[in-house]
Amino acid sequence: MADLSFEFPDGSIKEFADAVVGEEIAKSISISLAKKAVAAKVDGKLHSINEPLHKGGKLEIITKDSVEGLTVLRQTAAQILKMAITQDFDNVQFGESVADVDGFYVDTDKAGTQITVDELDGLANSMKKIVSDNLEISSLELSVADAKKLAGDDQYQLSLIDKLAVDGQVLYNQIGDFKGISEGAVLPKTGAVKIFKLLSVAGAYWEGKSSNPMLQRIYATAFNKQAELDEDLKQRQEARDRDHRVIGNQLDLFFVDPKVGAGLPYWMPNGATIRRTIERYIIDREVANGYQHVYTPVLANLDLYKQSGHWDHYREDMFPPMDMGDGEMLELRPMNCPSHIQVYKHHIRSYRELPLRIAELGMMHRYEKSGALSGLQRVREMTLNDGHTFVTLDQIQEEFQKILKLMVSVYHDFDINDYTFRLSYRDPKNTEKYFDDDEMWNRAQGMLKGAMDELGLDYVEAEGEAAFYGPKLDVQTKTALGNEETLSTIQLDFMLPERFDLHYVGEDGQEHRPVMIHRGLVSTMERFTAYLTEIYKGAFPTWLAPHQVRVIPVSEEKHGAFAQEVSEKLREFNIRADVDDRPEKMGYLIRDAQTHKIPYTLVVGDDEVNSNAVSVRKYGEDDSKSESVDAFVDEIRNDIDTYSRNEE
Amino acid sequence: MADLSFEFPDGSIKEFADAVVGEEIAKSISISLAKKAVAAKVDGKLHSINEPLHKGGKLEIITKDSVEGLTVLRQTAAQILKMAITQDFDNVQFGESVADVDGFYVDTDKAGTQITVDELDGLANSMKKIVSDNLEISSLELSVADAKKLAGDDQYQLSLIDKLAVDGQVLYNQIGDFKGISEGAVLPKTGAVKIFKLLSVAGAYWEGKSSNPMLQRIYATAFNKQAELDEDLKQRQEARDRDHRVIGNQLDLFFVDPKVGAGLPYWMPNGATIRRTIERYIIDREVANGYQHVYTPVLANLDLYKQSGHWDHYREDMFPPMDMGDGEMLELRPMNCPSHIQVYKHHIRSYRELPLRIAELGMMHRYEKSGALSGLQRVREMTLNDGHTFVTLDQIQEEFQKILKLMVSVYHDFDINDYTFRLSYRDPKNTEKYFDDDEMWNRAQGMLKGAMDELGLDYVEAEGEAAFYGPKLDVQTKTALGNEETLSTIQLDFMLPERFDLHYVGEDGQEHRPVMIHRGLVSTMERFTAYLTEIYKGAFPTWLAPHQVRVIPVSEEKHGAFAQEVSEKLREFNIRADVDDRPEKMGYLIRDAQTHKIPYTLVVGDDEVNSNAVSVRKYGEDDSKSESVDAFVDEIRNDIDTYSRNEE
Repeated sequence: MADLSFEFPDGSIKEFADAVVGEEIAKSISISLAKKAVAAKVDGKLHSINEPLHKGGKLEIITKDSVEGLTVLRQTAAQILKMAITQDFDNVQFGESVADVDGFYVDTDKAGTQITVDELDGLANSMKKIVSDNLEISSLELSVADAKKLAGDDQYQLSLIDKLAVDGQVLYNQIGDFKGISEGAVLPKTGAVKIFKLLSVAGAYWEGKSSNPMLQRIYATAFNKQAELDEDLKQRQEARDRDHRVIGNQLDLFFVDPKVGAGLPYWMPNGATIRRTIERYIIDREVANGYQHVYTPVLANLDLYKQSGHWDHYREDMFPPMDMGDGEMLELRPMNCPSHIQVYKHHIRSYRELPLRIAELGMMHRYEKSGALSGLQRVREMTLNDGHTFVTLDQIQEEFQKILKLMVSVYHDFDINDYTFRLSYRDPKNTEKYFDDDEMWNRAQGMLKGAMDELGLDYVEAEGEAAFYGPKLDVQTKTALGNEETLSTIQLDFMLPERFDLHYVGEDGQEHRPVMIHRGLVSTMERFTAYLTEIYKGAFPTWLAPHQVRVIPVSEEKHGAFAQEVSEKLREFNIRADVDDRPEKMGYLIRDAQTHKIPYTLVVGDDEVNSNAVSVRKYGEDDSKSESVDAFVDEIRNDIDTYSRNEE
Repeated sequence: MADLSFEFPDGSIKEFADAVVGEEIAKSISISLAKKAVAAKVDGKLHSINEPLHKGGKLEIITKDSVEGLTVLRQTAAQILKMAITQDFDNVQFGESVADVDGFYVDTDKAGTQITVDELDGLANSMKKIVSDNLEISSLELSVADAKKLAGDDQYQLSLIDKLAVDGQVLYNQIGDFKGISEGAVLPKTGAVKIFKLLSVAGAYWEGKSSNPMLQRIYATAFNKQAELDEDLKQRQEARDRDHRVIGNQLDLFFVDPKVGAGLPYWMPNGATIRRTIERYIIDREVANGYQHVYTPVLANLDLYKQSGHWDHYREDMFPPMDMGDGEMLELRPMNCPSHIQVYKHHIRSYRELPLRIAELGMMHRYEKSGALSGLQRVREMTLNDGHTFVTLDQIQEEFQKILKLMVSVYHDFDINDYTFRLSYRDPKNTEKYFDDDEMWNRAQGMLKGAMDELGLDYVEAEGEAAFYGPKLDVQTKTALGNEETLSTIQLDFMLPERFDLHYVGEDGQEHRPVMIHRGLVSTMERFTAYLTEIYKGAFPTWLAPHQVRVIPVSEEKHGAFAQEVSEKLREFNIRADVDDRPEKMGYLIRDAQTHKIPYTLVVGDDEVNSNAVSVRKYGEDDSKSESVDAFVDEIRNDIDTYSRNEE
């Protein structure tokens, strides 16, 4: 067989015999490197350090402590998990196993039944035995024919063999009698996988398609150091604690029933109260800032979206049109801009009316893939805090700044502090890819930058990131699960005014073309509520909390009437108060109020009845203080009026 | 030919020769009756008094002053109008002519062009000439074949001949040379039609189908006395003044563009402000009354509406389902009940939770025929002030009463006084046509009646008017155009809890079936806003008015800053104030504020600036009074807080 030629990172080239293993190559560089080596990366593909190599190429030796080294450790753990499963259970078939920076998982199909979360401890013990035996993990190369013989009628394995075969050969990792198809580089001995954790089990469709059988996916992770695992588990717990789907369920905020409609959330009374409070706040702020709120229909003739260009460029995210007969095709809108353009066009507009600010809590529909749907974060029906300002070219900078100031002030009221700004420009080297008006682009981009600088805000500039129709500003933040997300956008648009032939009559009596600014302050009600749920961990500030005050009488009989009286008085001030007079122990009732993250728990007993007072305990605090009912009313009203910001 | 036998109202029977005319029969009763007679009604069909009769039957002589006598007068006027048209224009074809209690109309097709409103005066003059000539109107009977020869290639007439022929004969009214196909009884001489009025012209599709050609419909009316015509014209003007479509346009409340979507209104900022105020008011009232507001999706899998029965019984009003592939069919909801049932079912419910009140401003879609669409009154996308209460059978009366009280209190705040109650029961003679539970029906109907009586409310009882699934209360009112309309409904429902297998856990620990109460306090936002626009004639009370205060400086230069200051101060109190400082005459600006029906116009000049005062003019009043800014703020805040009811 021919020799293989490897190019090392320093550019030097060495030749080795076919079937050389990575360890040997590492040794040729240095003994210390060979000791740390866990895989050989050839042309971007990882190979186990003891796996025979059959192709040369750019070579990199991967060490234990690198990110890729960690995936090798985890792939090893995945094979050990599969081996443990075959030891503990009969008739289990395996789908894919994947190891990456987040951990690893193994898909399983246990003939008719399922591996449950209760069985994870037993499996972990079996894995520990395999680890402590420190078995050798060898590479076994089979022809596709032999591999298929080994697979028998296991359709998953047969499919994986076809997918993973290279030059008619399939690689297996063999540990004792166990032969697992290789889905990535592994370590040479099981003893290396000392620190691992089986996390959870969840259903997952074979190949991700809902028409395929559902497998049970075992989620797990592995690390080199216990401290790293501990930190990872803490972060996972933290993410779970913040996960708006989990909290949404605990606090009864919303639910989605895929049988009734995937991605179509039902807002329960608690969630609806939060949303309504947000909606009123946003509308009031916008109206006070010169926005004219409208209601426009979610349906329109398809022609409207043909004219806007959505049908040509965005169709895959749109719902199918409804054929009403007589050539009438109605379409659920994917965006509100064409609707607001109708409002603009309904009158002849004068320069005196600009900037003209049209706003709406606009319901839209987008057909997200079912796999992408997630609680309130990714849905198919959503209500956007939408707004479109029509301006002259000269007004861009001032209007942009006004929007920004309003936006930052809104964030402040919601106690949102963790965000960054990103300006997206057109690519100066490919200007022909963009809406054709050099002067407009140059002036507009200059104005956005100028506005940011004038306000002293930090930002990154991203050349080539702008859309076809204009530059934009994004406000970026992170979800509890660490995903980057856009909280708000201010998007300039030169194109739609052109497509819809929009005009205003200028001071010169002539018709001019306005520029459109699309802007959302807080994105959709769905996504924003999900985001707030996560940043507050469900402990909504008083002004947003669905239940603001819970009043608990020490004895229903003796203090129940006074509790009702206090609650009534609070309700007169539009404070969301209720009484919990269930015949349970006081400790239980207080804990229950805390579990529901109610900002204020008031206990009333003899002392309070006698002095017209309440014993106040704030959420998350152990102490309570006694104060007069009037003083408490003042306190909580101030709390609500100041958006619970706890400032000076 | 055989004799004809007529049964007179007193039961007596007389025989006459075939082709006897009504006049002769009337004479056989009394000469005085014959003098007043204008038509003979045989088995319910009107015949001209000089028209040969060919069939016997129950006979009634119609006199001039009866309601039916008026339609004979108007049908005569319609023939005179057609004759005048043939005199004044060439090549006009006629569609239908209809005379009824509202007036009469003639459909015309003037080869390629149209008869316009400007031509009505000329036509009226030609009609007057025909009337003053007092021509004879004779009956002319033609065979269908001869009639079709007369019609030539006039497709409308050919179609009318087929429609109107009786036993192969077609009747015409002949006046001089003019032969008009008979579409109802007419008077014997043109001189009787002295008092008439041609009102307007509007397009109308032949046979009401939008795929047919559009004709020009000439609307008109006729009376026996001038005073009656005057009163009718006054009422028509009144209706026009109240028409929410006209006011909606004047006050820029909303618009509908059939090209973008028939029946899909766009709420402009003024209309949206009114709607938002109504929405917040309703939600706040409902929440204070124990309703839990939710948001639920407008889309659901079609299966939901199959289960609810809407798909089987209501399909023609529903939008077509959207086929998403993989068997997923999504449907725009025609009603919100199934959504609220999902909310109910999301938890196991206890008797302690009942009555459980779920409410929503729920958007729905119904595919109304395009001919039925009208402004905001009849639309295809609507938002219903919807609510569903789940109760035990025992709770029906108390809950029904609570809903009624809230409803009446809401009407009071909107100053709605002109309505009546109607209770709909099942037909006691056909109980098998209804949901099968005698005890439930009897108790429920008794409880509704009991509740009405206890509250001392008047009502009518309508046996046999209930829906299949339960009894109901309707609140009826009239639109400006005189159409009866349902303002609110409280509908009991025994069926949906059955269909969706709803339960609550009773005090006995067993599962029981709740009863559902559907209720809307103020119907849809669209219909209610249309209704309010009509009853207020666009002069919305201050709390609802889109613009509440207009401040006008006598001189922009000298008093403009103070005007802004006053406006700002008002806005701080959430009062919708603006400044009109256009360089126009004071009289013009004040008139403009009145035209826009703004409740308060404040004029500020030297005196006001010096004394920190405003000169206040209320809408519809000629006088103005001067008061301090603070006093005005107090006044208008009180006005708004009391829903502008002008009560002590």
